Amino acid sequence: MEKKLKVGILGAGRIGRLHTENIIYRIPDVEVSAIADAFLNDDMIKWAKNLGVANITKDPDDIFKNDEINAVLICSSTDTHAKFIIDAAKAGKHIFCEKPIDYDIVKIKEALNAVEKAGVKLQIGFVRRFDHNHKKVHDTVKSGKIGDPHIIKITSRDPEPPPVNYIKVSGGLFFDMTIHDFDMARYLSCSEVEEVYAKATVLVDPTIGELGDVDTAIVILKFKNGALGVIDNSRKSNYGYDQRTEVLGSRGCVMVSNDTPNSAEIYTEEGIEKEKPLWFFLERYNDAFIAELRAFFDSILNDTEPLVTGNDGLQPVLIAMAANRSLKENRPVKIDEIKF
Amino acid sequence: MEKKLKVGILGAGRIGRLHTENIIYRIPDVEVSAIADAFLNDDMIKWAKNLGVANITKDPDDIFKNDEINAVLICSSTDTHAKFIIDAAKAGKHIFCEKPIDYDIVKIKEALNAVEKAGVKLQIGFVRRFDHNHKKVHDTVKSGKIGDPHIIKITSRDPEPPPVNYIKVSGGLFFDMTIHDFDMARYLSCSEVEEVYAKATVLVDPTIGELGDVDTAIVILKFKNGALGVIDNSRKSNYGYDQRTEVLGSRGCVMVSNDTPNSAEIYTEEGIEKEKPLWFFLERYNDAFIAELRAFFDSILNDTEPLVTGNDGLQPVLIAMAANRSLKENRPVKIDEIKF
Amino acid sequence: MEKKLKVGILGAGRIGRLHTENIIYRIPDVEVSAIADAFLNDDMIKWAKNLGVANITKDPDDIFKNDEINAVLICSSTDTHAKFIIDAAKAGKHIFCEKPIDYDIVKIKEALNAVEKAGVKLQIGFVRRFDHNHKKVHDTVKSGKIGDPHIIKITSRDPEPPPVNYIKVSGGLFFDMTIHDFDMARYLSCSEVEEVYAKATVLVDPTIGELGDVDTAIVILKFKNGALGVIDNSRKSNYGYDQRTEVLGSRGCVMVSNDTPNSAEIYTEEGIEKEKPLWFFLERYNDAFIAELRAFFDSILNDTEPLVTGNDGLQPVLIAMAANRSLKENRPVKIDEIKF
Amino acid sequence: MEKKLKVGILGAGRIGRLHTENIIYRIPDVEVSAIADAFLNDDMIKWAKNLGVANITKDPDDIFKNDEINAVLICSSTDTHAKFIIDAAKAGKHIFCEKPIDYDIVKIKEALNAVEKAGVKLQIGFVRRFDHNHKKVHDTVKSGKIGDPHIIKITSRDPEPPPVNYIKVSGGLFFDMTIHDFDMARYLSCSEVEEVYAKATVLVDPTIGELGDVDTAIVILKFKNGALGVIDNSRKSNYGYDQRTEVLGSRGCVMVSNDTPNSAEIYTEEGIEKEKPLWFFLERYNDAFIAELRAFFDSILNDTEPLVTGNDGLQPVLIAMAANRSLKENRPVKIDEIKF
Repeated sequence: MEKKLKVGILGAGRIGRLHTENIIYRIPDVEVSAIADAFLNDDMIKWAKNLGVANITKDPDDIFKNDEINAVLICSSTDTHAKFIIDAAKAGKHIFCEKPIDYDIVKIKEALNAVEKAGVKLQIGFVRRFDHNHKKVHDTVKSGKIGDPHIIKITSRDPEPPPVNYIKVSGGLFFDMTIHDFDMARYLSCSEVEEVYAKATVLVDPTIGELGDVDTAIVILKFKNGALGVIDNSRKSNYGYDQRTEVLGSRGCVMVSNDTPNSAEIYTEEGIEKEKPLWFFLERYNDAFIAELRAFFDSILNDTEPLVTGNDGLQPVLIAMAANRSLKENRPVKIDEIKF
Repeated sequence: MEKKLKVGILGAGRIGRLHTENIIYRIPDVEVSAIADAFLNDDMIKWAKNLGVANITKDPDDIFKNDEINAVLICSSTDTHAKFIIDAAKAGKHIFCEKPIDYDIVKIKEALNAVEKAGVKLQIGFVRRFDHNHKKVHDTVKSGKIGDPHIIKITSRDPEPPPVNYIKVSGGLFFDMTIHDFDMARYLSCSEVEEVYAKATVLVDPTIGELGDVDTAIVILKFKNGALGVIDNSRKSNYGYDQRTEVLGSRGCVMVSNDTPNSAEIYTEEGIEKEKPLWFFLERYNDAFIAELRAFFDSILNDTEPLVTGNDGLQPVLIAMAANRSLKENRPVKIDEIKF
Repeated sequence: MEKKLKVGILGAGRIGRLHTENIIYRIPDVEVSAIADAFLNDDMIKWAKNLGVANITKDPDDIFKNDEINAVLICSSTDTHAKFIIDAAKAGKHIFCEKPIDYDIVKIKEALNAVEKAGVKLQIGFVRRFDHNHKKVHDTVKSGKIGDPHIIKITSRDPEPPPVNYIKVSGGLFFDMTIHDFDMARYLSCSEVEEVYAKATVLVDPTIGELGDVDTAIVILKFKNGALGVIDNSRKSNYGYDQRTEVLGSRGCVMVSNDTPNSAEIYTEEGIEKEKPLWFFLERYNDAFIAELRAFFDSILNDTEPLVTGNDGLQPVLIAMAANRSLKENRPVKIDEIKF
Repeated sequence: MEKKLKVGILGAGRIGRLHTENIIYRIPDVEVSAIADAFLNDDMIKWAKNLGVANITKDPDDIFKNDEINAVLICSSTDTHAKFIIDAAKAGKHIFCEKPIDYDIVKIKEALNAVEKAGVKLQIGFVRRFDHNHKKVHDTVKSGKIGDPHIIKITSRDPEPPPVNYIKVSGGLFFDMTIHDFDMARYLSCSEVEEVYAKATVLVDPTIGELGDVDTAIVILKFKNGALGVIDNSRKSNYGYDQRTEVLGSRGCVMVSNDTPNSAEIYTEEGIEKEKPLWFFLERYNDAFIAELRAFFDSILNDTEPLVTGNDGLQPVLIAMAANRSLKENRPVKIDEIKF
């Protein structure tokens, strides 16, 4: 099949590999021309070679300087995102960047400015917008079928906490996990967040508390369009990844449930059994990961606005900052209080 | 059938009539001996006569002084509850009292003291505890099957706002509507509420706002056992009464959905259609209203502790007060701040 | 409450007691004046006295000759049904008769003739027509919403086989159990059955086979309106009473599922658990038993055609006969082959 | 990625293209080396070139004689299947063949003999065995969790009839459509069919009847292990592809429902709306098509028995023949009556 776009991958960790394989196996008109990872090891090289990727390098500049490459996927650690966005923009590459852009608003703004100046596309990796269920909620709200949104409700629970070493560098629950829900909140309400109140605690694992983080949280959001929102998070729903969304509007309500491996119901003397929700994000958002890349490449090929813009990358960071302050000071915090 | 108990009904409004008819048609071993209503009218008399009630009166003392009567049901307006509790206690009658006991903590305490002194039974009308669904959630938590409770989640939405005249005297959303959810929160968490943060607004009907009330709310609760809770309320879910509860625990999650008139699914070219939830509390909690009276009478007959005690009547009032203060001051409020 | 009708109960076995209690506790405008049972014992007398029934007798004539009694409920053994219908009709009493009228077509016709001659109401106890779910299927078909019926599908399984002594006198699976489904088939198709093919076997309990009966069956029906029908029966679905119906039409499909004690779903590491269907017909058709009597009394009070007529009692017997012949001869049998 | 197998595709119609694209995009270790189609046209050539297939030919011998090719996929019209199986077997190629092998038992036997003699793998394209739902039903039965199978129930309805031209050459409903259900019946019962009774009629489209075919059918199966089975078919369930299976066993029941595009429920004043089942087999069995090829290739790579054998291709043809005879003669027909 004719390859219409050539891309370079920055970072060959779990998410970088996922995107690489999705392009190679599922997106036939795009070619992975190069992969760069500062911590390149034999495993990565073997993996990339087996996939038939021509260039494997430690140096990201090998990608930025490669004139054949149209776009980059930034899948490296968060602290490199802003810099790579700027480098890629300067090199005239379109950019797909994993969330979050950065924890520092100044750096985010610099990166967005570079993108704007260069006139390249930038899409942020808020993959849930491409999930068949959440998208249907959004589309239903947008269609007006349920009237004006009144209450946005997001259940978001991980099946198990990440390793302790990850917790240490994750930026905390709101930056690492809830940030996806903050994006969902904006996506489903079709509005911006104005004020945040976050209540959180340590119920799952005391080690998480010792590291200064929380594992169980409820966040109330006030939106500019007047609606209210609520998110509940847990680092451990041992029955699988729990990802449900719901919007109550002036004329009705739309809600979605979890995906399961199959629809079997087994009836016995003991009761009715069904399968648990899909285990985690790789299973649940498997198709959404492909759809988000497809959308990114289409926005390049058709020269249209990406479906998740740079501002969509910025706003959840502001909300996460407000949530952190709210948690620390046990009071509602307005997004406007977050200066930058 | 042998009548083991004789009861007097105080107040022949909607809820008084409901209880009266439930006793007469559904609780064969209890007799309604008398009905008292200060605003007695011809309609009430006709209704009561048709049901075969012997004594119909304007004067509650006709009930308190009737030695044959073992118990009273207080179904009159909220401002009479505390006084009637005291009168009934002094008369040695067991007491079933509709919620809330009062809006004034001092009066509630006086009423509870009178009950304690008299040694009569007192059950408060938190009917949802007797709903097949919510009871199953409570029982599951209590059984330990899902471990320690982490998040208690209550969706509670009325199909339509009450009349404006009712709004004026209702005590506001938290006292009139959310008070049931505050009771549910205690019931499902098996714990006491420690702190409340309430966010609310007017989205359903501006008239409600003009009367100083709100119609859409989200409330976060912090429980003494460490769990977090969240309630979302709306005065208008136009698809019917939306009453769902859920508890996430350390070892699992239990959730219940709404009841519907039937389970039919109709598949056509346009999609799949199902019936809406039952319209309102009379439909949804129909069986629960009977179950709560049955439980009250059994607690008398077997001399056991009522399933909803005087303290269960007091606590939600304290939480509602804290919620009102939280809403007014836009800050979390501890229950301990409510003095009495 | 004013008693508009007085009824006599013939037969104080399980179903007779059920109807008696339903009238006394749930149908306030009808009085049970008398109960007759040829095998009257102390238990029955105690039970009836406790309910406040005035006349308790061994002699059914005490009911037929009582001028105050407007209607009778025939709840005695099947072999007495036809005679009691004739006696009641001659006495000018309206008649509710449990299914089946008889196993003998000649006797059924005699009974129906007596009813017609006397001009009294006759309603047959096919209680499932009053179930909220099956009624919705019927109503949907009748409304035309799913077009012309093409396939009628009935799942009907008992949680456990009846006692061996009952099997011996039950008339066999088709007369005892499937007869309800034959009625459902007519009710849901809005048509008459033309041809039957029955396949059945013994899989649940060899004792049933030794008694000449079967316990597992599938029956195909051809209707006069062209539609096809299928019933599957088992004497043992150990997870509870399995009663589902479905109609595929030219413009859509309607289907209903079982009722459960509550809607709770419990999510744990082991999977999702739900409650089993209600255990058996007393639980599942509890409300339907009341609704069928209410409908019978209303047809008397309003002088309207009963919702389940004498012919509705006759037809399923013909179908059961055809099914028995089909099973014996392993070939499809037309209803017209059943002579009478 | 290293290509471990090279395959040739025989027939570039709809299903041939589907398999080709699935291999190219989803099965990275297998290469499509050649495509042969007797009716090769410009469209096919363009399509194949765009996919990067090296050899495109009218002559199947170009595939059989190509020593590099390990396996063939027979996707041509049914009348060529048996011959191509024999040719491929003689050439030592492993064979994946679409259903049915043939309408003629003698030809099927010849083909199976050729396969046995050559010692190559043969897998038949009964794709539903690889569906997540039906597979779970099979696995549950096989695990013993629901005991011995008593009733196997298959609902199988197409959203719309095929074009008239297709009906003419389809072999009739039982050979074209129900044949999949006959395979399901064997798969889910873990047993062989002994006797068939088929009742069918024309309700969807009179043209189908004029062509001598039927469009609505119910088939009863008797299995060798004693279980009963029932299949209901319609050529038109206008709400989408209706594919449900269920097995009642001595210790429980397992059932699966349809797949839908998403789980959204929209609540409004009009009722609750959900999405219809996926439209047709391409949508519903999308993943199963990939899984069946993966299984075929794995059986070659690991030298294991294919999951759908030659006998699995033969048996449904015998059952379809018996069903046709049953329909014609309106009587149950034993599989043993089908001579060959």
